Amino acid sequence: MTAQQPASPPVAGDAFCAIVDWGTSSFRLWLVARDGQVIGERRSHEGMMHCSQTGFEPVLSAHLQALAAPAKLPVLICGMAGAKQGWKEASYLATPTALGELSDHAVSVSSALGDVRILPGLAQRDVDAPDVMRGEETQLLGVSRRMQTGLVCMPGTHSKWVLLETGEVRGFATFMTGELFAVISKHSILSHAVDDARPDGEHPAFVRAVDAALGNPGMAFGQLFSVRAAQLLGFEDKSDGAAHLSGLLIGAEISAIKQRYGTGQGVTLVASGSLTALYESALVRAGFSIATVDADECVRTGLFEAALKLWG
Amino acid sequence: MTAQQPASPPVAGDAFCAIVDWGTSSFRLWLVARDGQVIGERRSHEGMMHCSQTGFEPVLSAHLQALAAPAKLPVLICGMAGAKQGWKEASYLATPTALGELSDHAVSVSSALGDVRILPGLAQRDVDAPDVMRGEETQLLGVSRRMQTGLVCMPGTHSKWVLLETGEVRGFATFMTGELFAVISKHSILSHAVDDARPDGEHPAFVRAVDAALGNPGMAFGQLFSVRAAQLLGFEDKSDGAAHLSGLLIGAEISAIKQRYGTGQGVTLVASGSLTALYESALVRAGFSIATVDADECVRTGLFEAALKLWG
Repeated sequence: MTAQQPASPPVAGDAFCAIVDWGTSSFRLWLVARDGQVIGERRSHEGMMHCSQTGFEPVLSAHLQALAAPAKLPVLICGMAGAKQGWKEASYLATPTALGELSDHAVSVSSALGDVRILPGLAQRDVDAPDVMRGEETQLLGVSRRMQTGLVCMPGTHSKWVLLETGEVRGFATFMTGELFAVISKHSILSHAVDDARPDGEHPAFVRAVDAALGNPGMAFGQLFSVRAAQLLGFEDKSDGAAHLSGLLIGAEISAIKQRYGTGQGVTLVASGSLTALYESALVRAGFSIATVDADECVRTGLFEAALKLWG
Repeated sequence: MTAQQPASPPVAGDAFCAIVDWGTSSFRLWLVARDGQVIGERRSHEGMMHCSQTGFEPVLSAHLQALAAPAKLPVLICGMAGAKQGWKEASYLATPTALGELSDHAVSVSSALGDVRILPGLAQRDVDAPDVMRGEETQLLGVSRRMQTGLVCMPGTHSKWVLLETGEVRGFATFMTGELFAVISKHSILSHAVDDARPDGEHPAFVRAVDAALGNPGMAFGQLFSVRAAQLLGFEDKSDGAAHLSGLLIGAEISAIKQRYGTGQGVTLVASGSLTALYESALVRAGFSIATVDADECVRTGLFEAALKLWG
């Protein structure tokens, strides 16, 4: 009896395509085999803002070379590379949008690298709630393999809350939560009250602030200054500031959603890194049941699914 | 019959005292006669931040000299000069505070200029709603000559909402509305969507945003990004951005107060300059009846009243 040889891992020559998540300030590329297995991965800070100076093609080319990708390998991109200020504009699809149709609207880029396409973003052309996304729609395509209907929370610099119905994006809302945390803690009077401590979801100041925001919907603007006042009056230390501010902002976001949708339906949380624990903690305090999925995995799955539809 | 000579206007030699509103980034001084008449006035940007570098006494001395104030003229100061980082700390009085007693707690500064005193600020030592003010308490003393009981709105970099009861500050809340407008329009993604246009209270984008914030309490954080999205989707122009953002922030502030107190009682609006029309417009849209008083006049009246109690 001879033992069966294990299948040897796929190499760059086996790649079926390259998929790229090209954000405002980040670049991520994966080489994938036809069965979806990841052969190689690259990450850098060469996002849209960087590339609008240097050009997009040289950046993509260098990363493909670094992984020894076969020449003329098809490449599918999502994110800000498709913005007006990006590589080539991939016009927004209007909501409601069936996620399965994203790939039908991919825009071809004229490139010496071969077949390079960019997926479109989504626009909510509602004069009372205008909104746009680029990149999250592809994550949602990945999410929709697990759940087709429900409320999705995608925290980040600009958090997105999305209502899915049988694989269709019915509507969405952007909260500038992450960016507000950054600009308020860097540029406002609260810069004196926030240090570099990374808040976690169990920090007492975070929990108190989430509860305060949930208990007093709409008052978040009237509570921001309390981050500083609590320290001036000796109730908190500077090491509590980041947790307090973060709790108010995340609490306000979740409180607004709770007011609008109630907690009857669960929330699918699409997150990576340190935000995961913060949002999990706050969502549970608000009374939501949650299922967490990894944001990185979702964008990869979504890109791969769209690539299969194009070239599979 | 000889016509009666009109009283000649008072001159610097007639001054009863000097009163100073010394803010974070502004300095205002008035020489006043015993009957309250203003003899001379100085304004500059030598606020606390400037003077913590240069010293406070030289700044005060130069302005007194410029008005030819008599030597050893008593000087009463309110505002950030009494902060810990100011000239000399005038410890906060805890709420509830009878405004008539502010002058009893003025702190004497040791100065070659003579009798110089600083009025204290107020602190709300409530662990669930910690808050502080410096300067506004003196404006409120001026306001309390007109009304002793009711809701007072004092818009600015940090707006204060104050509940007065028979001349006593019962409680207050700070909204960082003006500062949020500044940091968001300068440092966030919305900097691409806001130009230098000065919003006015009748601007359609301002009015729409106020109504949106009032109609959807708690959603203001979820609407900030719409300032940019509305332009990306062609619903608005960059010249609408400042009005839109301003309407959302002021609308969120007023919406929170309305949720808490209703509109049954009117609001006394203590404002100066371009903020007056914005807050008047938004308060009326929210259903409040309003009486507007001039903020500059209130701080002068309050300082003078406190000075009379000390030296009258």
